[in-house]
Amino acid sequence: MNASAPRSEDARPAQATQRRPGGRTARIRAQVLGAVRAELGERGYDGLTMESVAARAGVHRATVYRRWGDVGGLLADVLDAAGEDDWQPPDTGSLSDDLAALNHEIQAALTAQPPIVTALIAASFRSEKASCAQQRLFQDRYAQCEIIVSRAIRRGELLPDTDARRLLIAATAPVYHQLVLLRIPPDPHLPGHAARTAALAASAGAFAEPPSAEPPSVGGT
Amino acid sequence: MNASAPRSEDARPAQATQRRPGGRTARIRAQVLGAVRAELGERGYDGLTMESVAARAGVHRATVYRRWGDVGGLLADVLDAAGEDDWQPPDTGSLSDDLAALNHEIQAALTAQPPIVTALIAASFRSEKASCAQQRLFQDRYAQCEIIVSRAIRRGELLPDTDARRLLIAATAPVYHQLVLLRIPPDPHLPGHAARTAALAASAGAFAEPPSAEPPSVGGT
Repeated sequence: MNASAPRSEDARPAQATQRRPGGRTARIRAQVLGAVRAELGERGYDGLTMESVAARAGVHRATVYRRWGDVGGLLADVLDAAGEDDWQPPDTGSLSDDLAALNHEIQAALTAQPPIVTALIAASFRSEKASCAQQRLFQDRYAQCEIIVSRAIRRGELLPDTDARRLLIAATAPVYHQLVLLRIPPDPHLPGHAARTAALAASAGAFAEPPSAEPPSVGGT
Repeated sequence: MNASAPRSEDARPAQATQRRPGGRTARIRAQVLGAVRAELGERGYDGLTMESVAARAGVHRATVYRRWGDVGGLLADVLDAAGEDDWQPPDTGSLSDDLAALNHEIQAALTAQPPIVTALIAASFRSEKASCAQQRLFQDRYAQCEIIVSRAIRRGELLPDTDARRLLIAATAPVYHQLVLLRIPPDPHLPGHAARTAALAASAGAFAEPPSAEPPSVGGT
């Protein structure tokens, strides 16, 4: 769930020779979003301006203003673009290993240099647009990951009424908590341990409770 | 673990009649930190200035600058002061209920109005001093909570080699994750569910693994 890590194709230079219809619009977006990520990684939210992004992208400032409006719009589009990739949840053949692989991806994204993902998280406390886009991305990623749980159910590892979302959050939350809020150095054992703990609790029926009266509104529908 | 919620005594008015030695210094600190919390709750980090805090506290601006230096210093002292209270972890007689009570406190603090705790979390992404103070407070609170685990071990609920810190983080992380990062509406069932899940995993031996080669540096020593 390397949610908002940079995609390499967005870093392609302006001289890319796409000439198909829509190519220019897509190319400008890629240049601008690549510039946002680069600026964010180098300077963080405080150093991010429409001007610095336009200059770095080699795109006219007026274009950036017209299409993205403000810095919040740029950040939101970076997060939206991260959700448009072809990311797939791990599929190792076991629940515990799938969750461990997922946690390793999360830990790698949260400790990557330059710190683009953590800069986006920090920005989500400043910009309402970025916050909404981050919520959408999280919801999309967790929805995509539900297949990890349904495959485990099909393999007979879990009861059919397992609450996939609760299980996924239990498995991944410790990694986010330690790195984003507690800010302790990354523990190489944590991704696997948190995964095994959630899988153990799941096989003991922890997530197969009857649905609560007021489920968390995470369905996105 | 109502980590950084306001303490009522810090809101006492300037006319409090403490005249014992040290009373004036303590009173000024209480007035200033109360003003920081109030400003933070009303305006957030962006509205917080040395001037607005001094004016609200009824304390000379020069005093605030001399003693706290800058806004980061004010935030750090609010967080340090939160750690100086006489907070005690819940003691209900069962591991699961202790963890549930703890999670209810966390959820209440993270959803309180005015949103002082969430404003402090947001500020910790902006101010290095606030970030360090928040890390200290988290470490102190988790260290205090280890007694929940040691009591459960004494009662025979858990194996003696249970890793208290991992267990506490597994129990509490989903509440922080849902409210601080995923930003979904508070689920009234989550505090209890996350607590029961962690207790179930703990009684299944999830936190009794041999110590890892590289333990997370959470000891605070």
